[in-house]
Amino acid sequence: MRHILIIGAGKSTSYLLKYLLEKSATENLFITIGDLNTERIKTMIGSHNHCNIIKLDIFNEMARVEAIQNADIVISMLPAHLHIQVAKDCVTFNKHMVTASYVSSDMQQLHKEAKRKNLILLNEIGVDPGIDHMSAMQVLDKIRSKGGKIILFESFTGGLVAPESDTNLWNYKFTWNPRNVVIAGQGGAAKFLQEGTFKYIPYNQLFRRTEFLNIDNYGQFEVYANRDSLKYQQAYGLNHVATLYRGTIRRVGFCRAWHIFVTLGMTDDSYIIEDSEHMSYRDFVNAFLPYSPSDSVELKLRHQLKIDQDDIVWDKLVELNLFSADKPVLLKKATPAQILQKILMDSWTLSENDKDMIVMYHKFGYELDGKKHQIDANMVVLGTNQTYTAMAKTVGLPVAMATIAILNKKITSPGVQIPVTKEIYTPILLELQNHGIIFNEREVPYLGYNPLNN
Amino acid sequence: MRHILIIGAGKSTSYLLKYLLEKSATENLFITIGDLNTERIKTMIGSHNHCNIIKLDIFNEMARVEAIQNADIVISMLPAHLHIQVAKDCVTFNKHMVTASYVSSDMQQLHKEAKRKNLILLNEIGVDPGIDHMSAMQVLDKIRSKGGKIILFESFTGGLVAPESDTNLWNYKFTWNPRNVVIAGQGGAAKFLQEGTFKYIPYNQLFRRTEFLNIDNYGQFEVYANRDSLKYQQAYGLNHVATLYRGTIRRVGFCRAWHIFVTLGMTDDSYIIEDSEHMSYRDFVNAFLPYSPSDSVELKLRHQLKIDQDDIVWDKLVELNLFSADKPVLLKKATPAQILQKILMDSWTLSENDKDMIVMYHKFGYELDGKKHQIDANMVVLGTNQTYTAMAKTVGLPVAMATIAILNKKITSPGVQIPVTKEIYTPILLELQNHGIIFNEREVPYLGYNPLNN
Repeated sequence: MRHILIIGAGKSTSYLLKYLLEKSATENLFITIGDLNTERIKTMIGSHNHCNIIKLDIFNEMARVEAIQNADIVISMLPAHLHIQVAKDCVTFNKHMVTASYVSSDMQQLHKEAKRKNLILLNEIGVDPGIDHMSAMQVLDKIRSKGGKIILFESFTGGLVAPESDTNLWNYKFTWNPRNVVIAGQGGAAKFLQEGTFKYIPYNQLFRRTEFLNIDNYGQFEVYANRDSLKYQQAYGLNHVATLYRGTIRRVGFCRAWHIFVTLGMTDDSYIIEDSEHMSYRDFVNAFLPYSPSDSVELKLRHQLKIDQDDIVWDKLVELNLFSADKPVLLKKATPAQILQKILMDSWTLSENDKDMIVMYHKFGYELDGKKHQIDANMVVLGTNQTYTAMAKTVGLPVAMATIAILNKKITSPGVQIPVTKEIYTPILLELQNHGIIFNEREVPYLGYNPLNN
Repeated sequence: MRHILIIGAGKSTSYLLKYLLEKSATENLFITIGDLNTERIKTMIGSHNHCNIIKLDIFNEMARVEAIQNADIVISMLPAHLHIQVAKDCVTFNKHMVTASYVSSDMQQLHKEAKRKNLILLNEIGVDPGIDHMSAMQVLDKIRSKGGKIILFESFTGGLVAPESDTNLWNYKFTWNPRNVVIAGQGGAAKFLQEGTFKYIPYNQLFRRTEFLNIDNYGQFEVYANRDSLKYQQAYGLNHVATLYRGTIRRVGFCRAWHIFVTLGMTDDSYIIEDSEHMSYRDFVNAFLPYSPSDSVELKLRHQLKIDQDDIVWDKLVELNLFSADKPVLLKKATPAQILQKILMDSWTLSENDKDMIVMYHKFGYELDGKKHQIDANMVVLGTNQTYTAMAKTVGLPVAMATIAILNKKITSPGVQIPVTKEIYTPILLELQNHGIIFNEREVPYLGYNPLNN
């Protein structure tokens, strides 16, 4: 029996657990699930020969170390900032480890020691980061193997609501951490490369500088730039690329409306609004508008943001009850971002039967034999219900598959790794196809951002 | 002889030195001026019986301590962050101290010990902070002494160019630290009180939410909000005021044009622009605009910011050579703010004969005998030349007068102080009048922000 320890079995682990339990007999696995809250997990998976559920507080060092020592490999599904202690224990006690989170600088510092001990600390093997790395590298390597020179790479991902559950004017509901949506894009200008020129978008313009995408059967989407488009330039081998752009996908119209919150200052998480506890939603809006003894909050907002009387963006605000004097904020000492999050959660929380959707879109521009070419590849994954979500599927399955591949010595490169090598992406992308996680790839005319290029 | 040590005799100390030297005989003063660069000071003041100029490096502890020990009182005109070491020495060696800078938290921590030793550490006695405190408190105390209840206080200051030197479309030149102008307003939302409601303006809207002022003989000005309108609420005794608003004065039209820089992201000081050294001004502008193979930087900017073809704001940009492909940035690893500062300094540096101007404007709203009243008070000070500037005058004279008042035991409250008490402001404001620093005060109808109040 090979022992897998899963630490932290939150909502996004349904597919991870299901897959590993299904494979437990054929792959000879014994799975220990450690979490503070064991009841929910017991209810979900019942009793199983190859599985043990233990109450585990990762801040209890003795319990944590004992659990890790009993395992051959550890999957950490904890919040990202909690991985590092688990990772250190894994290195100490000679265990492999898998996470779906970004490599932190603390994690990176374990590389040498892990490599020396021939241990694999595989990170960023969820959906974004994860499937984005693997699917991008597969096409990039294919182009390069036939002699193509990459000149453009764009990569976009979005966690959205499935078309059948797309019932509000924003075409959006919270399918993941609402807080991350509210504060997205803050902390500095977005930086990217367009046709050989570095471009910078300040936060105040981020949601006004969008690009459009079209996916067959799913219609149009829009994209706003991530802060860190150049982050994987080196890891992907794109040092001489002319265009490098990464972004987040929304339905068309979302960003234009979201820009209103940014402009008003409602997404600011850096200070506390006075007496937030006793405000109404209307008071909250009014705090960002000039005082007037006579003009309405509505007219002041329309005037300041120059919103025409017949602009459909207005209906999006009304739909959120933003102007309601009866809806109380009730949050003590809250920041604007916290209050906005509460207002949005009123409207954007998934209903019982709602389903989510993960959309990914890559563009690859390249030169071959003196000509310019482009490949577009996209993936759409729909959730089944609120346990088996598209998010849980696309995060959990790659983690699970990579874990077994490490146990089976199919993945062997030691140290702190991300899934950008053939050894990792080829088998996993192939197996993901059996689970409906499929990229549609097609040749399109190369455009880039310069029609004159052709 | 009473010994005054002045540490740091930069450009803003002309009036301070002149005043103290003129008083040195009658007031029995001996003045030691310590600076790294003594040549400039020697050239300016020549030889003087009551004055000694010494080369002083404040990081040389022995020299610093020796100079301080020889003094009865120390004036620190160093950059604000360097005051604290001098202040600590003053407390150790039982010397009074005067600065024109904001009280830092380090400085505040010396209060108890200074008080115990009966030492005065008087800060914020320049123009802003300084004359603003004194002139505001004089009127506030007067209103309260006749039984009035303050309901509104607004206070605005600006360092501008004198009308005769007002020769560009921005009606602005750098009369003080250019860097502070470029990064003004950053670091968080502006917060203030309007008619009993807390209001917040995010940086991206700061220069679009201006107020207007009018000063006889000087015409119209505009004001944008300071971040910290509530900073002196307690010190001024304004805990129950309905409107509290502090701001910075510019000529009308400045802020609307400045907003373009903010929106584009050109005032950001938090990251470095790639290859800034080899950029032209035009490249710099283009870095904040989408790539286009055909459209001009001009049209892209007009389009993104919706600037009409006949909008005069455009001429302000052209005047700065912002679209010049021939003007090189030449700065290595520069932030957007540093590059913008360089571009502005090309156009906004004072010419040899230019004169500066300090403008201050207070509004006081109060209730008395069941009626609402308002007093407006404003001050305009013009510079004489580039040595005897309005800035040097309004900063240096209060510092000099307070120093003598401390020596003469007219100012006696010990500890870390700011000039909000009658003991300090009454004699100094009176004497400032002899130097042309005069507030024009008049009763006006109370308006506040609510015409219905009347």
